[in-house]
Amino acid sequence: MRERLEALGIPVPDWATAVDADAVAAFLAAHGGVAIAKTPRGGYDGKGVRVVRDAHAVDDWLGAGTVLLEELVPFRRELAQLVARRPSGELAVWPVVETVQRDGVCAEVTAPAPGPDSAVAAEIGERIAVGLGVTGVLAVELFETADGRLLVNELAMRPHNSGHWTIDGAVTSQFEQHLRAVLDLPLGDPSPRAPWSVMVNVLGGPPGATIPDRYPAAMTAHPAVRFHDYGKASRPGRKVGHVTATGSSLDAVLAEARAAARFFDS
Amino acid sequence: MRERLEALGIPVPDWATAVDADAVAAFLAAHGGVAIAKTPRGGYDGKGVRVVRDAHAVDDWLGAGTVLLEELVPFRRELAQLVARRPSGELAVWPVVETVQRDGVCAEVTAPAPGPDSAVAAEIGERIAVGLGVTGVLAVELFETADGRLLVNELAMRPHNSGHWTIDGAVTSQFEQHLRAVLDLPLGDPSPRAPWSVMVNVLGGPPGATIPDRYPAAMTAHPAVRFHDYGKASRPGRKVGHVTATGSSLDAVLAEARAAARFFDS
Repeated sequence: MRERLEALGIPVPDWATAVDADAVAAFLAAHGGVAIAKTPRGGYDGKGVRVVRDAHAVDDWLGAGTVLLEELVPFRRELAQLVARRPSGELAVWPVVETVQRDGVCAEVTAPAPGPDSAVAAEIGERIAVGLGVTGVLAVELFETADGRLLVNELAMRPHNSGHWTIDGAVTSQFEQHLRAVLDLPLGDPSPRAPWSVMVNVLGGPPGATIPDRYPAAMTAHPAVRFHDYGKASRPGRKVGHVTATGSSLDAVLAEARAAARFFDS
Repeated sequence: MRERLEALGIPVPDWATAVDADAVAAFLAAHGGVAIAKTPRGGYDGKGVRVVRDAHAVDDWLGAGTVLLEELVPFRRELAQLVARRPSGELAVWPVVETVQRDGVCAEVTAPAPGPDSAVAAEIGERIAVGLGVTGVLAVELFETADGRLLVNELAMRPHNSGHWTIDGAVTSQFEQHLRAVLDLPLGDPSPRAPWSVMVNVLGGPPGATIPDRYPAAMTAHPAVRFHDYGKASRPGRKVGHVTATGSSLDAVLAEARAAARFFDS
């Protein structure tokens, strides 16, 4: 993924592959003594990712193969750019969003990302979708650095947590758009339906904490919030649902989405 | 239905039941020689309804039982008021809409009904829902008379064609609200999501007119319109789908919904 992005001229964090502890030591020495290490396969939601400050910190992974090392980017915030492309070439680009991660897991998404409008994220998303010949929905996770540059963190070649807000907050949701794209049907309008949408994930708690029991109170308090329950068995930290609030005041929408999600805190 | 509404003090057209041609003649004589006749059961979409100017015009129906006669109301337009009620008493009231019928079938719905705001329709809807102890969604079809009064034409104790716009145009759709109501869960916000929503029905054409073939052209021309296909076999005049457009200019929204629906004309 890093090789293809560099070949396309897309800005990414410094990176290298390592096959032994010497290579890890060299990368650490060149990057202030700290790096992000990733297993090339099987990682998600913070799994398979470590912050590394010691050349032997990934010896267990090196035994199984190559490890990806990346610079630890001092980012101001994380963004995500969602794009859809159909085989005949049409693109649809949703507004770039701000994502907040907690413990390596997406916690909250604000659409659009607050701050001055910028076409840079959309351009990066389009270049990747075209350059890789993507069919369907592509999510580009981005770091916004302290000096305002955007670097690509991760790609997800599918509908993505950062796009769940589109179900209730955009004219065309990422799921409908994905179907349109893979069927090579004309893409729908990705415009937002409200000035602001905020999605907050609901994470599972200990077994026995029955989330369905909490709906009546949550729905009474928040009649305009959209609740999504994935019907998954609850495990601590597992994404089992999300809530989305929309409206014209960012502060009010943020407060409402967070308050609605709090009903499901374990 | 007429008896219950009158007992609740709800304004309805003049009416009577007839068991023979003499009764039809008497009603015609008292109402300028014209009346609407309805079979008490089995009618929908204009079926089981006749405009009657002759005492013997419903002899075929009288053989099978009682016929309902109503005054022909000289209405300015038709409105519909959608209300939901849950058993514990909570009500949710969508904005009153204007409906346009063609050949006795709903053709087009504009939400909210254009014109000065009025609470009269909402009050009628609430009084009926409370008075009849409705559970779920209730649609009240109304005549707006030339002198501005509202008379109840028909009731539909269910999600209704006049509420299909809520799927895309309201925070809570009539279908979700119906489920919330029958489960006695807190009702969702019935507010509109855009200043204007217009729904246009798609009617079936002759066999062989394959509507799915027309989607690509329709979706290309109208990326922001929501298309709904019921998956029904096409028969001339049968409701097989609908389209909904939303936006802030009524003229633009009306034009877009009509143009999108026209792709499916037989």
